[in-house]
Amino acid sequence: MADWQVIEGGVTAPRGYQGAGIAAGLKPSQELDLALIFSETEAIAAGVFTTSKVRAACVDYCRQRLQAKRSARAILCNAGQANAATGEQGWQDALSSAQLLGNSLNIPPDTILLASTGVIGKSIPMDRLGKAIPQLTGALTPDGSDAAAKAILTTDLVPKSIALETIIDNRPVRMGGIAKGSGMIHPNMATMLAFITCDAAVSTSLWQEMLTEAVGHSFNQVTIDGDTSTNDTVIALANGQSRTKAITTLEKDGEKLAAMLVSLCQYLAKAIARDGEGATCLIEVQVSGAPDQKAARQVARTIAGSSLVKAAIFGRDPNWGRIAAAAGRAGVPFHQDQLRIQLGDFLLMENGQPLPFGREGASNYLKLAAAGAYLQEDTVLISVCIGNGAGTGVAWGCDLSYDYVKINAEYTT
Amino acid sequence: MADWQVIEGGVTAPRGYQGAGIAAGLKPSQELDLALIFSETEAIAAGVFTTSKVRAACVDYCRQRLQAKRSARAILCNAGQANAATGEQGWQDALSSAQLLGNSLNIPPDTILLASTGVIGKSIPMDRLGKAIPQLTGALTPDGSDAAAKAILTTDLVPKSIALETIIDNRPVRMGGIAKGSGMIHPNMATMLAFITCDAAVSTSLWQEMLTEAVGHSFNQVTIDGDTSTNDTVIALANGQSRTKAITTLEKDGEKLAAMLVSLCQYLAKAIARDGEGATCLIEVQVSGAPDQKAARQVARTIAGSSLVKAAIFGRDPNWGRIAAAAGRAGVPFHQDQLRIQLGDFLLMENGQPLPFGREGASNYLKLAAAGAYLQEDTVLISVCIGNGAGTGVAWGCDLSYDYVKINAEYTT
Repeated sequence: MADWQVIEGGVTAPRGYQGAGIAAGLKPSQELDLALIFSETEAIAAGVFTTSKVRAACVDYCRQRLQAKRSARAILCNAGQANAATGEQGWQDALSSAQLLGNSLNIPPDTILLASTGVIGKSIPMDRLGKAIPQLTGALTPDGSDAAAKAILTTDLVPKSIALETIIDNRPVRMGGIAKGSGMIHPNMATMLAFITCDAAVSTSLWQEMLTEAVGHSFNQVTIDGDTSTNDTVIALANGQSRTKAITTLEKDGEKLAAMLVSLCQYLAKAIARDGEGATCLIEVQVSGAPDQKAARQVARTIAGSSLVKAAIFGRDPNWGRIAAAAGRAGVPFHQDQLRIQLGDFLLMENGQPLPFGREGASNYLKLAAAGAYLQEDTVLISVCIGNGAGTGVAWGCDLSYDYVKINAEYTT
Repeated sequence: MADWQVIEGGVTAPRGYQGAGIAAGLKPSQELDLALIFSETEAIAAGVFTTSKVRAACVDYCRQRLQAKRSARAILCNAGQANAATGEQGWQDALSSAQLLGNSLNIPPDTILLASTGVIGKSIPMDRLGKAIPQLTGALTPDGSDAAAKAILTTDLVPKSIALETIIDNRPVRMGGIAKGSGMIHPNMATMLAFITCDAAVSTSLWQEMLTEAVGHSFNQVTIDGDTSTNDTVIALANGQSRTKAITTLEKDGEKLAAMLVSLCQYLAKAIARDGEGATCLIEVQVSGAPDQKAARQVARTIAGSSLVKAAIFGRDPNWGRIAAAAGRAGVPFHQDQLRIQLGDFLLMENGQPLPFGREGASNYLKLAAAGAYLQEDTVLISVCIGNGAGTGVAWGCDLSYDYVKINAEYTT
């Protein structure tokens, strides 16, 4: 079982971090819109970024910075403007943002990482940012995680935050994370962002390896509407302030730290799915029997991303036919006569055929009603077995509601 | 320009075909639900089927039949039950359906092709089918295309039918097609089906080659919700009754016939997109500048399939940011500073940057209003150029509306 516990404090739970979130006037709503995470000492830094060919300036900036030097002191994030499709000016604005913050914190600009979320094609109002930076750095506190978690949101309904603690070398080692999503993973006001802090001592390359692996098992398995943002960013810092000896391999303590990072990322990923635009529930899809993990994850993601499955769940309809069809088109070979589908505890299909659980008959009606009742829960578990393979995988999504259409049809104009 | 004209008559426009559509009591609604297309002489037959690993019995049946013998006399299609996920019984029902029709028409069962559309996991009520077959064959007439076109529908709002005529060897050569889609391409009550008849004389392998190519440029470029059905089927017959000499290569007459087939399939594909569940408009996405055709089609399909683009169009919002983001995640490499996006006649983005067409300012407001007005049209054209390549491609879709969610949330229960 998990060898760690949940603690308070978000990204400022690990030693040596401070956080801040302020209203800088970047969002028309006057809500919090500028976040800062600060490490009191140099931290090693890892990042995973959008694979889109259309990328925000901050993404190009971070990738370049991390290629040159895998460490950082601070993460600055603005909400309201994506600074994507803003050309040379966007790049200059990114550089200026780092310079402004560096001056205020008295640290080199190249120790600052950047993230933006908001409307594509909108530049950051640099005059407002410039005026806000001193206020932002002045607001840094060791319990500033909540303010930062709020300041990175856009259409999200709730902040997403978690912190975990384990024991390594008889000393507490902590990890914290905040995230935003919503129309996930979507290009306008709902980029997927996650910022993770940790006070473990870990080697640079191992930390990047752990983060890439954890993202594959978490954020990359979340689908709200299948759209990838120009700004998707996950950044993880580790500053060694737990004062344990350095972790350099995936054995023992390394394995524990990696597993804790996966758990933390999965918590945030599920929180993003549950808070998807218009969502009324979280959908978790567990796939087993696949040739390998990759294939299992692919099938899980296809089911979780199917508009028809999502609409059926919104309608509280135990529609195994749509689940079977989504599995069938996932691009993973299997024999349909081995397909098994379960909704919560209800076995709906076995050996590729529906169980006597139709839409007629008294006892069938009772079962259908019970399955429909299960769908009233705020978490819906779909389990699918596609064969005899050892590959398993999980994906998360949310249902497709009228409100999703409303939010996305009426957003910009 | 096109070397053919539109004529009346659908699938019975070509010489030597009859059609019928009756209400066999398969749909609870008592609407037409059983269709027959009959060729008075043996016709060569080509087919393209769903790539899903979960396939209906009729799909397995047709693939086996066409592998054994590339000719047919009739296509039987029922609406109401998909006969998918019905196991051995489903397979036996398919065989029995062909046997029943063969007896009634006095033709060998292996000259009959089958298609089904409806609820997955539902078997065809064979007693009702058996009683209806004599009535169906008795209803065959040389102008029965409209009845057949209606009988293959499920949640579609309108029948989809077209016929074209050209001149080859100084003789008229005709081609007709009917189709259904709707929640396209989707597993419950909205499989994509198309049946095509032709009176050209053409070699068997060339006809299959022409059909595969035409499907790639038409039906495979339509996306309503990204879901592939267990039952997707396109069947094309050619019976040689035009009495022209046989076409055996893609030169001259062969090229003309192939182009006419693409045009016919594109007409039906667009009709399917326009009638997508809950759709208020047709979206056509034209992509140019890609490395090759395949890449261009991929980008076009990704944009046409983006839930965010679709919701924006439903909201009449000229949201180029979502179009750019969808292009960026299509898996085709390009430089974002070469991206150009046009909506109808409105140039929204050039060299990867939005034109002065923002959300503030008087003249911008006028342009925005004009673009919004353009989006009131019932066909919306999105043109995207991603670079200097020669590859072009088109895809079609429809907007994402409240009604899509309503139809799919409330369908089975």
